[in-house]
Amino acid sequence: MHSTAAVPRTFPRFDIAPLDRALSADLQHKIDQKTKPQGALGRLESLALQLGLIQQSLTPRLVNPYVLVCAGDHGAAKAGVSAFPQEVTWQMVENFLAGGAAINVLARQAGMTLVVADAGVAHDFGPRDGLVDAKVGAGGTANYLEGAAMSEAECVAAMHNGARLVSEFAAAGCNVLGFGEMGIGNTAAASLLTHCITGLPLADCVGRGTGLDDAGLERKRALLAQALAIWPERPLIGHLPLAEGEAGRGSAQLGKAETAQDALRILARFGGFEIAMLAGAMLAAAEARMTLLIDGFIVTSALLVAQQVSPAVLDYCVFAHCSNEAGHRRQLDWLQGQPLLDLGLRLGEGTGAALALPLLNAACAFMNEMASFESAGVSEKA
Amino acid sequence: MHSTAAVPRTFPRFDIAPLDRALSADLQHKIDQKTKPQGALGRLESLALQLGLIQQSLTPRLVNPYVLVCAGDHGAAKAGVSAFPQEVTWQMVENFLAGGAAINVLARQAGMTLVVADAGVAHDFGPRDGLVDAKVGAGGTANYLEGAAMSEAECVAAMHNGARLVSEFAAAGCNVLGFGEMGIGNTAAASLLTHCITGLPLADCVGRGTGLDDAGLERKRALLAQALAIWPERPLIGHLPLAEGEAGRGSAQLGKAETAQDALRILARFGGFEIAMLAGAMLAAAEARMTLLIDGFIVTSALLVAQQVSPAVLDYCVFAHCSNEAGHRRQLDWLQGQPLLDLGLRLGEGTGAALALPLLNAACAFMNEMASFESAGVSEKA
Repeated sequence: MHSTAAVPRTFPRFDIAPLDRALSADLQHKIDQKTKPQGALGRLESLALQLGLIQQSLTPRLVNPYVLVCAGDHGAAKAGVSAFPQEVTWQMVENFLAGGAAINVLARQAGMTLVVADAGVAHDFGPRDGLVDAKVGAGGTANYLEGAAMSEAECVAAMHNGARLVSEFAAAGCNVLGFGEMGIGNTAAASLLTHCITGLPLADCVGRGTGLDDAGLERKRALLAQALAIWPERPLIGHLPLAEGEAGRGSAQLGKAETAQDALRILARFGGFEIAMLAGAMLAAAEARMTLLIDGFIVTSALLVAQQVSPAVLDYCVFAHCSNEAGHRRQLDWLQGQPLLDLGLRLGEGTGAALALPLLNAACAFMNEMASFESAGVSEKA
Repeated sequence: MHSTAAVPRTFPRFDIAPLDRALSADLQHKIDQKTKPQGALGRLESLALQLGLIQQSLTPRLVNPYVLVCAGDHGAAKAGVSAFPQEVTWQMVENFLAGGAAINVLARQAGMTLVVADAGVAHDFGPRDGLVDAKVGAGGTANYLEGAAMSEAECVAAMHNGARLVSEFAAAGCNVLGFGEMGIGNTAAASLLTHCITGLPLADCVGRGTGLDDAGLERKRALLAQALAIWPERPLIGHLPLAEGEAGRGSAQLGKAETAQDALRILARFGGFEIAMLAGAMLAAAEARMTLLIDGFIVTSALLVAQQVSPAVLDYCVFAHCSNEAGHRRQLDWLQGQPLLDLGLRLGEGTGAALALPLLNAACAFMNEMASFESAGVSEKA
C-alpha cells in the first residue's frame, strides 16, 4: 500500500447510484409466490428484496464474502479512555494473524475471507504474510485532547487505502463485505464522531467500551467533553437522514460539498486511521454495488461519516446487529437502520457481521430454491 | 412406525436429569480467558455455557443436527379457524418431500438433516421414501368444537411415536434437534393448549396464523371460546415455571403425576397429532441429553405440555426465535425463555430453528477454537 507522502490530498470521490427500485414489484411478486403465507419469512423477505435491488436481479447471490478488519491506534488511549492498555491493539493484530481471535473463528464458520489491515497501529510489524500494510503515520493518531488526531491529508490517505483494498476484493469477485475494527480507544473516537455528526447528546454516545467501571465511564465522558471544548470552531452536522424512498435521498441533496468537507474535518479531528479507512472502504464498496454488512458502534461511526459524503451508501447497508455498547442503538435509530441480530455483543472485529451472514445466505437461498404455489401444486389462501 | 392399535396406553415415562451445574465455574473461567473483554460475546457466551452443561464438557460440539417436522390435520380446520384450506397440509408434505419448502432450503443451508413425519395427516400418502409413517388415526383429529380431538390412547401413541423416532436420531449420533410442524389449523390448537396450561387469557393466545384478516381473527377467537365452553370440566394448570437455578426445579416438584395427567388430558382434547408427537420427541431428546432447538408458537405449545410432564426438559432447550404469531412472546415470557432471533417469522416448519443453528455452532466454535489471553500473549484489562 502507499505511504502517506504518496497520497494526493484530493478528497476521494465516489459515484454511488441510489438503488433503482423499478424491480421492486417483480421481486415482491416472486417472494409472495413462494409456498408460505405472505410475509411469513419476516425480515428474510425484506432482506431478499434489498439484495435483489442491490444486485438488480431476481436471483441474488452472495459471492466470495469478505470481512475487512482495520486496526489503528489512538493517541488519546494513553489519557485513559479505555480499560485496556494500548499495546493490546498490536497484540490483537498478532492474534488475528495467528488465527486465534473471535473474528478468525466466526469468519471461518461463516465462510468469509478475513483480511486484516494495519491502518495505523503504533507498532512495527515488518512485512508480514496475511497483514495488509496500509499504515498511515507511524505511531497511531495524535491525541485529540491536544489537537487534531490526524491531518486532513492523513485522513484522505486512510480513506484512499480503504477504497483501494475494496477494488482488490471486487476484482476477486466479492459482492458482500463485512466491516470490522480493532483499536484500543476507538469507542471514544466513535463517540465523538457520532455526537458531532448526529447532534445526539454526548452522554448518549459514550459507553463502557471494553469494560470501564462507573468511575472509568465518568472519566471517559469528562475527557471527551474536554476534547470537544478545545475545538470550539467544530462543525455540527446533525442532519436527519431522509426516510427510505423519500424523494431526493441521492447524494445530490445531502452530500453537498460543505457537508462532506465538514464530515472529513470531524473525522480528521477525532477519528482513528482505522475508522477513516473503513469509511473509504464503505464508499468504494457501495460504488462497486456490494452489499455492506455493518457491524457495531465503531463501524457505524465510520458509516455516519460515509453517509455524509454520499447518502446513497445507506441503500447498500445491512445492519448486522445491535451492539451492547451504549450509543449503537442511538446510531441505528438515527440512521433508521434495523439490525438483524440483538445478542448483546460488544466485541467489534466484525464479529456481528460474520454472525449475520448466514441470514443473508438464507434470504438468497429461499429466493432461488423455494418452490412457488404453482410449481408445487399447493392451494393458495382461501 | 407402529399403528395406534399396537401402542400400549401407558403414559410415557421419561427420565430427564436436571443439568448438573458443577461444571459452570470451569466453563465460565474458560469463556472469560478467551481473548475478548469479559461478556463481549453476549448471548454466545451464555449459550456456550448451556451447551457445555448439557454435554457436561468444556468442549461442546454439535454433531449430526436434525430437524424433525411433524405434520397433522385438525378436525376444527373445517370450521374456519385458518385462512388456508385443509388440503394444504398434505400438499405441503408433498412439497417437503419434493424439497421445495422453506424448511428444505433452510435446513440444507444449516447442514441439518430434515426428517418429515406424518403424525396424522388426512391423506393417504402410501409408502413413500423420505416420509416417516407415524400416522395416528386416518383422517386427522376429531373436531374439538364437538368433543375431544383425540382419545388419550391416540395421544399417548403419538407421543410414543415421537420418542421412538428420537431414539433413532440418537443412534445416528445426533445431539442437537430442531422441531418443526405443519398442520392447517394448528395455531388454533396451540392457542387452546397455551391458554389451558399457562392460564394466560385466551385472547392473548390467539393470533392470525397463516394470515387471517380482522373478521377471521374474531371468528377464530369466538370458535376457540366455544371449544372451551363445551368442556367445562377442563383442568387449568397455570403453574408458573420456577426461575433458573431455583431449588427444586427438577421433575420431583412440578412434574407430579396429576399435573402430567392434566396436561395429557388437555393435549388430547385440543391438540394435534403433530403436537403430541413433538411433545414426546422433546421429552425423549432431553432424556438423551440432546440440545433442543425450539421453533415458534406451535412447537412451544408442545413444549408447554412436555414441561408439565418433566420440567427439567427446559434445561435442554434453546429458544431459536420469537415468532410474529401473537402469543409466542407470551409463551416465551411465561417460560422465561430468551429467543436468539427476532425476525418477524411466522412460518413454522422449524424454519426458526434452522436459522438459529449457526449461532449455536458459533458458540461451540469460539469455545473450542479461540485463543486465551495467555496462549495469545495478549495483555489483560488494566
